[in-house]
Amino acid sequence: MVGLILALDVMDRNRAIWLAREVSEYVDYLKVNYPLVLSAGIEIIRELSEIKPVIADFKIADIPYTSSLIARKAFENSAFAVICHGMAGSDTLKAVLDVSDEFGGEVYVVTELSSESEFLRKFSDEIAMLARDIGCHGIIAPATRAERVAQLRKIVGSMKILSPGVGAQGGSVEETIKAGADYIIVGRSIYTSDEPKAVARDIYERIKGLEV
Amino acid sequence: MVGLILALDVMDRNRAIWLAREVSEYVDYLKVNYPLVLSAGIEIIRELSEIKPVIADFKIADIPYTSSLIARKAFENSAFAVICHGMAGSDTLKAVLDVSDEFGGEVYVVTELSSESEFLRKFSDEIAMLARDIGCHGIIAPATRAERVAQLRKIVGSMKILSPGVGAQGGSVEETIKAGADYIIVGRSIYTSDEPKAVARDIYERIKGLEV
Repeated sequence: MVGLILALDVMDRNRAIWLAREVSEYVDYLKVNYPLVLSAGIEIIRELSEIKPVIADFKIADIPYTSSLIARKAFENSAFAVICHGMAGSDTLKAVLDVSDEFGGEVYVVTELSSESEFLRKFSDEIAMLARDIGCHGIIAPATRAERVAQLRKIVGSMKILSPGVGAQGGSVEETIKAGADYIIVGRSIYTSDEPKAVARDIYERIKGLEV
Repeated sequence: MVGLILALDVMDRNRAIWLAREVSEYVDYLKVNYPLVLSAGIEIIRELSEIKPVIADFKIADIPYTSSLIARKAFENSAFAVICHGMAGSDTLKAVLDVSDEFGGEVYVVTELSSESEFLRKFSDEIAMLARDIGCHGIIAPATRAERVAQLRKIVGSMKILSPGVGAQGGSVEETIKAGADYIIVGRSIYTSDEPKAVARDIYERIKGLEV
């Protein structure tokens, strides 16, 4: 059962709501990031949550106290999950996890980005172990490097793996699923299309076809 | 010439504006983070900028494209500078730096947090070198570990060093300045005080006293 997540990286409230409605039958979650939230206000999370559960991709990477405040703002506005950077350390992850527990929410941990970082890759395995050991709900692993998804799967066992970087960034739906991802995150290929619904349906069907 | 920065980590717009006005004669910059911006809207940066220049402490740590959008939102709303995580890698730092150049703004790079992270400390020296080599304007180095400020000073030469963690987190004004910081960042000690102006004045005078 592999799912599809729309990375809703547009800047306009109305377009975000329209896109979410268009693709809602094909996606499991909506992922929002700061460009949209800073443009439309954090209330956009609550509005979108009425269409599909929302993952607040805030890549939280602050000291524990501030990180917990950021996570609280997301959950208070009906987010289903938040994304936190593992590199911020175990104290920060635990602080965010405590807040998510209050709300019955989930925490997904960035192990490495879909872009290149000369630093993150050096300890993404350690971050995955930490996320697993303290009880986070999932990790973010790059579809742009399917071999890393496969390696991280060995570490995290049955935890959820969410993989961004499919489409515009070069990751392949098929290879990422084969490597062990539970959710494929797609953004630009859908929201910049003239027919976002058709593109979402196509990706959805490719995913389902692979499961047969 | 060491300066004082207020970390304006309150959640209420009116209180933020009031605090900024109270302490304005003693601080050089106001630093805002997501808890305030998510509560009050990003327009708070523009409002506060009329009192003192604002540093958007967004600890940007995303892929280059998204990071540039976040930086743009900050600068479009009159931020003077943004804070970016070095660990996101050189591509992200360069993308943020390109946006700051458009606006004549500055970019400060987190080398390590004032809290503990088992990961960040392993390559904070490398991050400082990267920030220096690509032309960022300053680094964030922890007042909670003054010896690290001193070591990072050797790497970054004449770049600005901004040091958070003074006061509530345990860092000392005197030791942090002695180690080579250009700006002391103070939050809770000022904004949770019954007399924020008096506390800001006291820290300001201690800083000036050390310069004599």
